[in-house]
Amino acid sequence: MEIFIPDLKAIRPEDESKKDLIFDLIIIGAGPAGITAAVYAARKRLNFMVIAKNVGGQVVLTSAVENYTGYQEITGKDLTRKFDEHLKQFKFDFKEAEVKNLKKERDIFVVESDSESFKSKTLLIATGARPRMLNIKGEQDFKNRGVTYCSTCDAPLFADKDVAVIGAGNSALDAVLQLINIAGKIYLLIRRDVLRGDKIMIEKVKASPKVEILFNTTVSEISGDKLVKGLKIDQKGEKKELAVQGVFIEIGYIPNTEFLKNFVKLNSAGEIEIDSNNRTSLTGVFAAGDCTNVPYKQIIIAAGEGSKAAISVFDYLAKR
Amino acid sequence: MEIFIPDLKAIRPEDESKKDLIFDLIIIGAGPAGITAAVYAARKRLNFMVIAKNVGGQVVLTSAVENYTGYQEITGKDLTRKFDEHLKQFKFDFKEAEVKNLKKERDIFVVESDSESFKSKTLLIATGARPRMLNIKGEQDFKNRGVTYCSTCDAPLFADKDVAVIGAGNSALDAVLQLINIAGKIYLLIRRDVLRGDKIMIEKVKASPKVEILFNTTVSEISGDKLVKGLKIDQKGEKKELAVQGVFIEIGYIPNTEFLKNFVKLNSAGEIEIDSNNRTSLTGVFAAGDCTNVPYKQIIIAAGEGSKAAISVFDYLAKR
Repeated sequence: MEIFIPDLKAIRPEDESKKDLIFDLIIIGAGPAGITAAVYAARKRLNFMVIAKNVGGQVVLTSAVENYTGYQEITGKDLTRKFDEHLKQFKFDFKEAEVKNLKKERDIFVVESDSESFKSKTLLIATGARPRMLNIKGEQDFKNRGVTYCSTCDAPLFADKDVAVIGAGNSALDAVLQLINIAGKIYLLIRRDVLRGDKIMIEKVKASPKVEILFNTTVSEISGDKLVKGLKIDQKGEKKELAVQGVFIEIGYIPNTEFLKNFVKLNSAGEIEIDSNNRTSLTGVFAAGDCTNVPYKQIIIAAGEGSKAAISVFDYLAKR
Repeated sequence: MEIFIPDLKAIRPEDESKKDLIFDLIIIGAGPAGITAAVYAARKRLNFMVIAKNVGGQVVLTSAVENYTGYQEITGKDLTRKFDEHLKQFKFDFKEAEVKNLKKERDIFVVESDSESFKSKTLLIATGARPRMLNIKGEQDFKNRGVTYCSTCDAPLFADKDVAVIGAGNSALDAVLQLINIAGKIYLLIRRDVLRGDKIMIEKVKASPKVEILFNTTVSEISGDKLVKGLKIDQKGEKKELAVQGVFIEIGYIPNTEFLKNFVKLNSAGEIEIDSNNRTSLTGVFAAGDCTNVPYKQIIIAAGEGSKAAISVFDYLAKR
């Protein structure tokens, strides 16, 4: 039986090649979940590595964060900087790369990027998610200038403003319900002729005099100058313009888990299925944050999940 | 069917008595879980109240917090102040009181303190836990001056120091394993003649030359001047002194859930059983943080859980 004692030095064979190192843990992703996991792994003196495309994940894209407990208001950029500084306190390998494939060879996991591969006893996947986009003109330009993909984060920023919510499911309805007591006029834009969300939520949305539902409506362009000023829409073939200062695009999220197919169990939404200790279907593989089936996607939740997953990894290694 | 739209105004009968208000939500407890839940509830414009004995919970008792992502190092006191400031941004009722009893009357919950009672459609319990104490001389005086109850929080503060870990279960063994690469000499003090934790962890603890296990040993006093300097122990009737700078008391936690017996389901450790959406066994009652069966007790985890629970409450009310 191998005696595991967390150690800063990796188990390495004769030659000093990094490719032959076997890490205790490789963390994939460096958003709030991955960074918090790294802070915990470092403090537990695990011999670990972080591989990520960037630091911060979706936080960087957020204009103002007002619900990360302890920071009353901070920009996504500044919070990312705080996370990054916290991380840089500790010594560990950071690799800026995209993971393309994962393999299990006996008891060891192999993480492959385009040009390199690394070995580890455990994996912690924290690759996050990305909002599904409309892919229309103006959408990129007005991101965080009126265009948002997170109603829980950003609804409070639109007090008394006229806004449009785009989507037909529960997230769109939830955005509308959140906006009812905050925004001015709320347009709910639906591509087809039916709302797909929960009946009771639909009833509440319909009961509000503030809300106007536009069925059979598509958006072709988001326009404005510095900030959003309006939408070009097409309602049953009739072209119109809608004056709004906010656009809530609520057509779903895509978890960044494409590279995990046939590796761990994903649910029908593509999210990694985890248990209450952040274990995936494959022993030795853990996951945390927006790439998992955790019920809500929030920075503070992802951070908590990252901590939970890292402690689970430590427990797993300690008992191996 | 009642149409619920989150509103700052409470549903109140003719008279303006606060006792007859029916809140959307009452949050019990104001540690990291309760405070984060309050931030989310406020931003979702729920009509809610917080009842707590104090603000901050166990955080206030922690000397240095180095694992709350975004703050590289902050004292427990300062982090509590940051939490409190974040909370004070929002308008809501805060009641400094201890909840003595909870009742359900039809669809409404009644929260009773010594002198008052309040009504709500939902409850969110975030009363935390308290470390089990040895109740010996010096223990109170040297808290955060060498005496600690959280190895994950505080082990890194004892680099190259000699320390004692008190306890015979997995938390004590876990504390020792965390300290092996950090501290100098580690004494593990066990009251009886057996270690109760996992075999593999026991083997690892025994394999380290740094660790000395003292069986049949009780501690009668923690001594020092400004900081801990030593322990007075009794080993099989023989009185000795042990020179240590750190004392890790790992004899378990007691969840603050005594008032919940016969109200929601508790596990054998007295923790509230919750599902992945922070629902308890009683519909309309949610729970978060250290008072629950969440597998690890950490500030960032409790904060994440508080967020998750508050969003769950909102969803529950929205669909009611």
